[in-house]
Amino acid sequence: MLKTNSKNYDKLLKINQKLAHYESILSLLYWDDRVCMNPESAPYRGKQIAIITEYIHKAKTSKTYSNLVESLNLDDYPKYSPQWVNIKWWKYEYERNKKIPPKLISKLSQLIPESLQAWEKAKKEKKFKILKPYLKKIIQINKEMIQKWGYEQEPYEALVKNYEIDITPKQIETIFCPLQKSLIQIIKKYQPTLSQKPQTFNFDQHKLEQFCKYLVKKISNLNIRLDPTTHPFATTISPFDIRITTRYNKLESAIFGTLHELGHGLYDYYLPQHQYFGQPISQSVSLSIHESQSRFFENIIGRSLPFWKYFYNQLIKYVDLSNITLEKFVKYINKIDLQPIRTEADEFTYNLHIILRFEIERKIFNENIQIDELPELWNELFKQYFEYYPQDDSEGILQDIHWAESLFGYFPTYTLGNLIAAQLLNTISQKINIYQQIENGQFQEIIQFLKENIYLLGKTYTTNELVQKITNEQ
Amino acid sequence: MLKTNSKNYDKLLKINQKLAHYESILSLLYWDDRVCMNPESAPYRGKQIAIITEYIHKAKTSKTYSNLVESLNLDDYPKYSPQWVNIKWWKYEYERNKKIPPKLISKLSQLIPESLQAWEKAKKEKKFKILKPYLKKIIQINKEMIQKWGYEQEPYEALVKNYEIDITPKQIETIFCPLQKSLIQIIKKYQPTLSQKPQTFNFDQHKLEQFCKYLVKKISNLNIRLDPTTHPFATTISPFDIRITTRYNKLESAIFGTLHELGHGLYDYYLPQHQYFGQPISQSVSLSIHESQSRFFENIIGRSLPFWKYFYNQLIKYVDLSNITLEKFVKYINKIDLQPIRTEADEFTYNLHIILRFEIERKIFNENIQIDELPELWNELFKQYFEYYPQDDSEGILQDIHWAESLFGYFPTYTLGNLIAAQLLNTISQKINIYQQIENGQFQEIIQFLKENIYLLGKTYTTNELVQKITNEQ
Repeated sequence: MLKTNSKNYDKLLKINQKLAHYESILSLLYWDDRVCMNPESAPYRGKQIAIITEYIHKAKTSKTYSNLVESLNLDDYPKYSPQWVNIKWWKYEYERNKKIPPKLISKLSQLIPESLQAWEKAKKEKKFKILKPYLKKIIQINKEMIQKWGYEQEPYEALVKNYEIDITPKQIETIFCPLQKSLIQIIKKYQPTLSQKPQTFNFDQHKLEQFCKYLVKKISNLNIRLDPTTHPFATTISPFDIRITTRYNKLESAIFGTLHELGHGLYDYYLPQHQYFGQPISQSVSLSIHESQSRFFENIIGRSLPFWKYFYNQLIKYVDLSNITLEKFVKYINKIDLQPIRTEADEFTYNLHIILRFEIERKIFNENIQIDELPELWNELFKQYFEYYPQDDSEGILQDIHWAESLFGYFPTYTLGNLIAAQLLNTISQKINIYQQIENGQFQEIIQFLKENIYLLGKTYTTNELVQKITNEQ
Repeated sequence: MLKTNSKNYDKLLKINQKLAHYESILSLLYWDDRVCMNPESAPYRGKQIAIITEYIHKAKTSKTYSNLVESLNLDDYPKYSPQWVNIKWWKYEYERNKKIPPKLISKLSQLIPESLQAWEKAKKEKKFKILKPYLKKIIQINKEMIQKWGYEQEPYEALVKNYEIDITPKQIETIFCPLQKSLIQIIKKYQPTLSQKPQTFNFDQHKLEQFCKYLVKKISNLNIRLDPTTHPFATTISPFDIRITTRYNKLESAIFGTLHELGHGLYDYYLPQHQYFGQPISQSVSLSIHESQSRFFENIIGRSLPFWKYFYNQLIKYVDLSNITLEKFVKYINKIDLQPIRTEADEFTYNLHIILRFEIERKIFNENIQIDELPELWNELFKQYFEYYPQDDSEGILQDIHWAESLFGYFPTYTLGNLIAAQLLNTISQKINIYQQIENGQFQEIIQFLKENIYLLGKTYTTNELVQKITNEQ
């Protein structure tokens, strides 16, 4: 190892550690915005967020920073060592950042708040044309960025790289294709309908909150905050300070929202964020690995009969399930339930919603499909897959926040996460009698397995490397 | 008005507006620390707070900042105009700051967290000697600062100036002296005892919280957050985002904590913080005026019979008061109840606790009393005033956090606030049938009076000026 490098490494580390405190502050500003803040104060919060974001961005694109990054050689450190991982990611992030002119970044970040407001209005009024001018600009900026970043096989690839560095759209297609076929076949064969009146449960929100908090504590044995929000999410404020939220619109949204976010939260809690504070190695592998953890707790653990064999008797202390027995309840939470809205879909057909979005995103960036054609394209594909033509754009293209927020290439990670969770179940079942543990209300061995094989490794391996390592599958 | 001045004024304003966003962030970091944060994460929060504090301090002591402040002339603007008020306070703050060497500031701010930890331990173990070395250093630093700041009549004066710019200890003495005499006489005459077993009420915390939230909403008609904490407080995150807390150890602590902090919160909400963001004029007059608002809502409104004529029937929906009638309840919350602990004292004898602290603080800084003599001095004075000798230091000198936090000169503002609240009642009663309004559950006219005469004026007048203006008393 060269001496200069070692000194520069330490300097870069120190800068990143300080910036990590700024990022903690930013997390708190966002969390508080969604959980606690009086909405009247939103413009001030916007300013606070802008000031801190600007500070971080300036520091990470400064001459000092770039000189330090460029002075480091990956080969000076053993592969997979913390230093190697850190340098790899510092360089990767910096290389991507430096290709994008600051003006483009600032144009996009100024556009997003307006675009989000337009999206809310458009969704409410069911009018795509309200969002259209913003979405058009956002797509245009993304196309410019693709040109700056470059790509090998197809333009869309450059956007997927924002979230998965070693997975290409081509590879995703190979994974999604058989899944898509069998999902469409099953829907055609069994013809579940969209019109069924769903079962609903009455509950007292305070009591249901207490049950959800009990779930978090019982499963994790950690102090993880759980708050109510419109859209559930998980976040890390600082190491050890992990917070999740869920929504209380329906019994099952509240419970499975809690379990989903708890999966994210456990991963975040046990990432080596304290040991390697401010270093890439302390972070999660990727969105798809993160999503595999949330899906594992939500679907594989949380929708299983053994889980409810343990928790059903607790649940009925908090919620009146009337004449719904344990078996009926588990059947109910596992039913195939076609929905025009992705977030209300069942675990199974959910993936078809994702595949639809993946296809449209690819068309937008690879085939230059025009903005005016998008709503129709969405609805036609939906009809083709789900045998249902959305009634309006709020049931169609306007349902998700992602595109209005410039999150292209993000959707596929949801289904990748689902698939990785299933692979994980295979592996873990070979080592632990997982459903027996769950039925006994014991989660520590499962969490221990996840710690050793995923959580504590941080960003050491890529998605592909890690999946292969755990499962010997790909 | 000179043109240069006007330009420099705008520059200084812009700097202060940006710094005000940093101060908002700091408020959130503190609020979250006390209300939401997982304590395991405390060292990280400490770092975040230090980084933001350092940023603000550096900006306010920079060469640019000092040049701008020094270039402005107070006489260029009409007296009491927003610009005049801002310049007056920017200069005042800067003049005080520049006299203190940064080293002394940093020595003190590094000492305080350790001192607070020592105080908690000392209080728990009832051993003054655990706090002693820290308190000794803190007093020493305060003495050094007094020398730097200078004073006219007595050293202690320089510390009081931290909180009240136009009130001297001599003036406070003139106010406190007759109060002290009559309080001691009354205690001697009626001999309320410390041994009475107090009435306690059982309650469900969630229900009591709902009642307290109802109180906040009903009185203020605003979205003011109310959360539970060990020590109640009020804070402004940003304009319109006002948050208060209370504690649920006892029924009356919860209710009067809520009303007290609501008084602070209403003042903060209606200060012109939005109109004059980042400007001294948008801030409160002083601690004593702030305290007058909290005491007004806690004691003058909240402990009155008319208040409970309106709210008693609501309260019993949330809490089982058993056989305690409205009249008995109001008598109970107004009883004279001698306590060794200030925060548990009744409204009346509370002031004697403050006078005791005022006397000791004066002795520390004017008479150079030694650190070892302090616990004994406290206990002797307490015996003299309250006819009770504290059992140990946790009932005596260790009960308050203030000195361990270097807050000397702060205590007198509590009693000044009490007295101003009483004066305010006199004035307001001449204009509004206040108790009739309260009995009808109507608070808007009262709040309107406070808005016009206090809240909306911000820092335009000093404590003395404002009190004289409102009450024609002094």
